[in-house]
Amino acid sequence: MKTDLDQIMQDRNLDVLLVLGNAEHNSPMYYLTGGGHVNDATLIKPRGKDATLFCNDMEREEAAKTGLKTVVYSKYSLKELRKEANNDMILVAALRLQKMLSDCGVRSGRIGVYGQTDLSSSFSMLLAAQKLMPDVEFVGESGMDSVFLQAMETKTEDEVARIRKMGQITMEVVAKVKDFLTGHAVDENEVLLRTDGKPLTIGDVKAKINLWLAERGAENPEATIFAIGRDAGFPHSVGTPSDKIRLGKTIIFDIFPCEAGGGYFYDFTRTWCLGYAPEAEQKLYDDVREVYEKLIDEMEVNMPFGELQRLTCDLFEAQGHPTIRSHEATQEGYVHSVGHGLGVNVHERPWARMEMKDNLLQRGTVFTIEPGLYYPERGMGVRIENSYYARPDGTFERIVEFPFDFVLEMKG
Amino acid sequence: MKTDLDQIMQDRNLDVLLVLGNAEHNSPMYYLTGGGHVNDATLIKPRGKDATLFCNDMEREEAAKTGLKTVVYSKYSLKELRKEANNDMILVAALRLQKMLSDCGVRSGRIGVYGQTDLSSSFSMLLAAQKLMPDVEFVGESGMDSVFLQAMETKTEDEVARIRKMGQITMEVVAKVKDFLTGHAVDENEVLLRTDGKPLTIGDVKAKINLWLAERGAENPEATIFAIGRDAGFPHSVGTPSDKIRLGKTIIFDIFPCEAGGGYFYDFTRTWCLGYAPEAEQKLYDDVREVYEKLIDEMEVNMPFGELQRLTCDLFEAQGHPTIRSHEATQEGYVHSVGHGLGVNVHERPWARMEMKDNLLQRGTVFTIEPGLYYPERGMGVRIENSYYARPDGTFERIVEFPFDFVLEMKG
Repeated sequence: MKTDLDQIMQDRNLDVLLVLGNAEHNSPMYYLTGGGHVNDATLIKPRGKDATLFCNDMEREEAAKTGLKTVVYSKYSLKELRKEANNDMILVAALRLQKMLSDCGVRSGRIGVYGQTDLSSSFSMLLAAQKLMPDVEFVGESGMDSVFLQAMETKTEDEVARIRKMGQITMEVVAKVKDFLTGHAVDENEVLLRTDGKPLTIGDVKAKINLWLAERGAENPEATIFAIGRDAGFPHSVGTPSDKIRLGKTIIFDIFPCEAGGGYFYDFTRTWCLGYAPEAEQKLYDDVREVYEKLIDEMEVNMPFGELQRLTCDLFEAQGHPTIRSHEATQEGYVHSVGHGLGVNVHERPWARMEMKDNLLQRGTVFTIEPGLYYPERGMGVRIENSYYARPDGTFERIVEFPFDFVLEMKG
Repeated sequence: MKTDLDQIMQDRNLDVLLVLGNAEHNSPMYYLTGGGHVNDATLIKPRGKDATLFCNDMEREEAAKTGLKTVVYSKYSLKELRKEANNDMILVAALRLQKMLSDCGVRSGRIGVYGQTDLSSSFSMLLAAQKLMPDVEFVGESGMDSVFLQAMETKTEDEVARIRKMGQITMEVVAKVKDFLTGHAVDENEVLLRTDGKPLTIGDVKAKINLWLAERGAENPEATIFAIGRDAGFPHSVGTPSDKIRLGKTIIFDIFPCEAGGGYFYDFTRTWCLGYAPEAEQKLYDDVREVYEKLIDEMEVNMPFGELQRLTCDLFEAQGHPTIRSHEATQEGYVHSVGHGLGVNVHERPWARMEMKDNLLQRGTVFTIEPGLYYPERGMGVRIENSYYARPDGTFERIVEFPFDFVLEMKG
């Protein structure tokens, strides 16, 4: 939780957090500011002290809404900085950073750098600032494990309430998609037909999804997966917009929207076959469903998430499917991890990696369970995903409910 | 243009471009790949050679759609990398980068780094890779001027066509907002009323804007400014969702959507007063409009954009307003620059900065002209913005047209 930040900084020997970039769609900055239209900001948080947010003058009102101490960049005269830097704009940025750090009392120590930023300008600025400030050390952390990812891993009730709200919105949209699809007529080639007589396409469905999300104050900055047939066999294929929607083919619908403006995500997947399921597709679904149910049975609070990954590989291999454990570079069978944490990032700690013994399903975590099987050459793929909250009382809450039906009866 | 990249690399003494991050909402990666759901990719482009796109196995089909040579990350066994790095995940990333560069024939030289990325993991990886590869030098560039910003500065006809399309969509949405606002009834306090009798708020209007954009295949990843009264006096205040919409107050409506999934932007602003304009508001509007018209008269192909900024300051100062030239830290009067280039970034070269003599309104550029005046303490602000294309024949095209009306007559 956010209140753990100082302790985690100490554990990692970090004296200062330096966060760069926009307040929105930038998880560490969003986490500390709560969002808002504040662009190209600089946040400095020394260990044990409050953070200061530096921002463009034009956005000072938006910045003030964060409740943090704010300072406008014009405090550092651009004219004078340019003179000092002989118009080298990289040095201008580095000199300004040095002054901002100094104004926060930072002249030495280890400074962790964070933020979703333009790498080119951030990297050049940090290298130049490093030369200016021999007594500090700018350091990055791994994308799998940082101060922020560790703090974000456990959620407050307020954070869970926001994720739950996004879950409810997601369920409304998924239900609308289901009704929309099954309400269509079908031609002699088993292709769904729009009222204008043209084939219904993936692009048509996605336009509706975007609309229904926007109506509910949500957005999908990381897109939506709606993939049919062979595309469904590639776990992260988002689907081909011109593809027609047909009966009897697996459709993977993986939707992961967040609050408009960035913020908390939900993550959910169903696989559907419209009208009927051929034997091979039904078998694939049954295999995934069986593994899903076993995983839910085996889930225990405080277990390493990687243990569930190991179990998933055991179960799929026992069914005869290749896995990334049995064949590291396999493109068929079970090819991803069984879940991930969920919050202001769509993917965050805890990670379901066998080698990460310290990523536990501890109280306060919110995470997905999403086994899947993929056979692109056979034109099919199946994934089932729900998100769970490990409650303070040690029980798991499936955050929202939706039927598991694989075959959707056509009503058009 | 993209075809200039190799020459620009040579001019800047860069041997390789290294672009990190997603294909969408990441302008250098979008520029080279054309987008698609390809996340955490690595693009390596040696000077004079084609680029190679490295991606996650699960996204290889999406990556293949870019038309670039693609290589999946599983080529570099994670198991072996972890062994080599003794499970240090930062070193794992650096070792993999070294191998990818080597497979593209890169073992020495200056490597420019780019991309909208997670700074912490990118920075740590680059520092570790720098240690592994003493014969290369990883360098960043300024956010105001890079290889990419220079190439992007001039557009092909195809790129302009996409911007024009976004302009048309923007005009449709602005027209709908205008009709929506003026169709409302008004109560005795001059507040607009919804059909349910509640006051119409900024939040209500923004929800409609998001909806109308989504319906047209557009999105607003950088938000939309719809700010009334005092908020309009802060150029980048996006507006307070709960604010009621009233007659006789300046409303700044600045909309800058892009193609869904990232891609080309449009940028447009009108300032409206609903019902009537008080004398002070009308005077402010007239001042801005007068300056806007003079700027359009003075615009010449190949002039430095900064000359227009100088002229804008001249004109506003002659009207008696403070400017950032006359008072560097002013919060009133004219406080920003008069425009910017527009493309796969909402802000890009050419910049309207007096000190940047080489940012010209050359043939092929697309840019905004957006003079404005802001008086938050007087509860008002005005900005007028249109986007222009400097055609190959040396004439300027106002990309789309919309009436300049300041006072909108209420019809509800």
